[in-house]
Amino acid sequence: MTTPTLSRRGATAPASPIRRLTPYADAAKARGIHVHHLNIGQPDLHTVSPMRAAYARFNDEVIAYSPSEGYLYYREALAGYYNQLGHDAGGGPIEPSQILVTVGGSEALLFTIAAACDPGDEILVAEPYYTNYAGFAHMLGVTVTPVTTHASEDFAIPVDRMRAAITPRTRAFIVPSPGNPTGMVLSAADLRALGQVCVDANIFFVVDEVYREFVYPEPPVPSGMPLPPAPSVLAIPELARHAVMIDSVSKRYSACGARVGCLVTRNRDFYLSCLKFAQARLSPPTVDQFAAAAALATPVPEMRAMIDAYRARRDLIVAGLNQIPGVRCPNPTGAFYLVTDLPVADAEDFCIFMLRDFDFEGETVMMAPAEGFYATPGMGRNQVRLAYVLDPDKLTRCLLVLRAGLSAYARRQTAAAT
Amino acid sequence: MTTPTLSRRGATAPASPIRRLTPYADAAKARGIHVHHLNIGQPDLHTVSPMRAAYARFNDEVIAYSPSEGYLYYREALAGYYNQLGHDAGGGPIEPSQILVTVGGSEALLFTIAAACDPGDEILVAEPYYTNYAGFAHMLGVTVTPVTTHASEDFAIPVDRMRAAITPRTRAFIVPSPGNPTGMVLSAADLRALGQVCVDANIFFVVDEVYREFVYPEPPVPSGMPLPPAPSVLAIPELARHAVMIDSVSKRYSACGARVGCLVTRNRDFYLSCLKFAQARLSPPTVDQFAAAAALATPVPEMRAMIDAYRARRDLIVAGLNQIPGVRCPNPTGAFYLVTDLPVADAEDFCIFMLRDFDFEGETVMMAPAEGFYATPGMGRNQVRLAYVLDPDKLTRCLLVLRAGLSAYARRQTAAAT
Repeated sequence: MTTPTLSRRGATAPASPIRRLTPYADAAKARGIHVHHLNIGQPDLHTVSPMRAAYARFNDEVIAYSPSEGYLYYREALAGYYNQLGHDAGGGPIEPSQILVTVGGSEALLFTIAAACDPGDEILVAEPYYTNYAGFAHMLGVTVTPVTTHASEDFAIPVDRMRAAITPRTRAFIVPSPGNPTGMVLSAADLRALGQVCVDANIFFVVDEVYREFVYPEPPVPSGMPLPPAPSVLAIPELARHAVMIDSVSKRYSACGARVGCLVTRNRDFYLSCLKFAQARLSPPTVDQFAAAAALATPVPEMRAMIDAYRARRDLIVAGLNQIPGVRCPNPTGAFYLVTDLPVADAEDFCIFMLRDFDFEGETVMMAPAEGFYATPGMGRNQVRLAYVLDPDKLTRCLLVLRAGLSAYARRQTAAAT
Repeated sequence: MTTPTLSRRGATAPASPIRRLTPYADAAKARGIHVHHLNIGQPDLHTVSPMRAAYARFNDEVIAYSPSEGYLYYREALAGYYNQLGHDAGGGPIEPSQILVTVGGSEALLFTIAAACDPGDEILVAEPYYTNYAGFAHMLGVTVTPVTTHASEDFAIPVDRMRAAITPRTRAFIVPSPGNPTGMVLSAADLRALGQVCVDANIFFVVDEVYREFVYPEPPVPSGMPLPPAPSVLAIPELARHAVMIDSVSKRYSACGARVGCLVTRNRDFYLSCLKFAQARLSPPTVDQFAAAAALATPVPEMRAMIDAYRARRDLIVAGLNQIPGVRCPNPTGAFYLVTDLPVADAEDFCIFMLRDFDFEGETVMMAPAEGFYATPGMGRNQVRLAYVLDPDKLTRCLLVLRAGLSAYARRQTAAAT
């Protein structure tokens, strides 16, 4: 019997680097090992209370299509939230008509790449980068070009190297801030400098700001005080025609399974193109939008408690990692990820070892080899990405397990060499 | 200030034909006119009761990512539903591993076209067709090629004309059954014949079966009896490697805003390609999946009441349309759409007239000009698509309004000509 040929893009679609080791984790669990998941940004913190309550309160007799651009009541509430953050600075207030509600930040990225790029075009990223950008680009026939950043430079994006990486086919620079996987936060000055490169090259500047609240300034802001979020590309008036901001409720409200995100842009033509893509898929989720609107009313103390919890975890895991012989981990200032060097030559081999060949008192740790977060072959081979989405007791156990695992792995490597 | 260039696909993305006249409808509403919406498939029937109750019952403390392929509990429930329908006939039972849960049927179509086609490839459709296929194809750089069907032939798809329309770039034939916009239902023999053409050409055969329960057999099946659904492509074992079935909860449970669909295929390579696209977007909606699983337990009498309501509406609107002088409407046997000829030269001009220049006792009707449902320029110019998603009293009013509108439009045309 004949079998139809898959498309080239279908046959060569990249697997997600955070899921590639899942079969090893499943096998470990089948052997009774407890696997701590540091590989995926699925927080353990409870979804914010107003959002959870909203699902129970939703009472429409017909769960109808939402408008393709999202409900006006939700876009109005979002505009109020952004304007309160100061995103209106200089460029005029954010209007509901500049907000397109999407199915998570993922769909906002898909529409953005499609509206900016034709097949054969390129998006520029700062590697290590959020690899789902590559998944969407691949689906759309678009290539990812990297500018490399380094742990030794706190993953700062060098403007000159970025400018040099732009080609005639580059259509957009896409960067998350606070960053995934690095946890680094771009300052307003960084955004201005990177944005100027985009204006000079006349390409879109796409900033994925889904972690904006999760920032850890020095000195710490006392718990009772409002915590200023990460700077936004929307607050830079000179970038009005080039800036696209990507957002999502997933992390902010610990509600990854509520598939509500948005893109915000003052570029009307860009908005209208994305709207046409949105019309083809009809509607973002109706009930999730209702819950997302409720989430905007989360009390400040509840939000602060979440942010403070991540900060405490960041402090714990970074200090713990740097106490392990041979580990050098930079100190991320936002989000809930870090990329750290490990004293191993091949982090993927080590991650597989941890799942397949090792446990410490019946426990092991699943990590994401960082190589998958680089577009340049061979980069990041001695690095892993960790998501500190577990409580401090578990993170302490993870550090113990990792330390013991590194020792065991080193002994095994030595034994194999002799 | 410079402005970055949109992609060609962004700049030329097609507007949805069912939404293009929305500004006229909005203006009519602003003048105090009541606009009956027959232009969009948004049912007025209540979402099924187990589904509505599920939202109130969902009580996870963390609304977490679902697996990218959907929750196993939901895929198991879906497999049970399909197997109970007899979709296992011959080809072995449908397994959960053959089901990929998507964000509505829309995303299943997007993944399917991406896994089958590279930029420059073609999908074949039977026009008039569901135009969102064109939106997804356009986004992916894929061309839509039509085989034309005719109201005078009850929109039957002629196998010879279909075969002749396949080119070396054709990668899939995509057809809804029951049909949108025609309401026509493919028999098992039709599916076999069309499927054989796909096997001969070695292309994917994609059948969009989201309306499978909404069929109106002759003679009618008494209300107490189970109603056999439309035949499924999954039940034809010869098509195991070529068939992809698209599904969604939107219409079946009157829950368009719950964005849960799926694709089902026995072609493992095809499935795995789609899974990689799914991994990039992380997760379908978590709470909507919980509700969709509950919907599968909707009592048969509640489902039958919904189907019987649509059948009564179909009978009412088709009879009413054929009583209007000059109108010839075929009798659709499924879904809740029809395409009818009107005694006008330019249906779009008439639809605009209805919204901009006409009302009957303060009411008017919004319809979708059928031209937008054809890929061949000039086809369908005297046709409209109607969705009979309003209750019988409102449909009766719509028929009155339409009849009066056609008279007024004819008078105006005559006056303009003299």
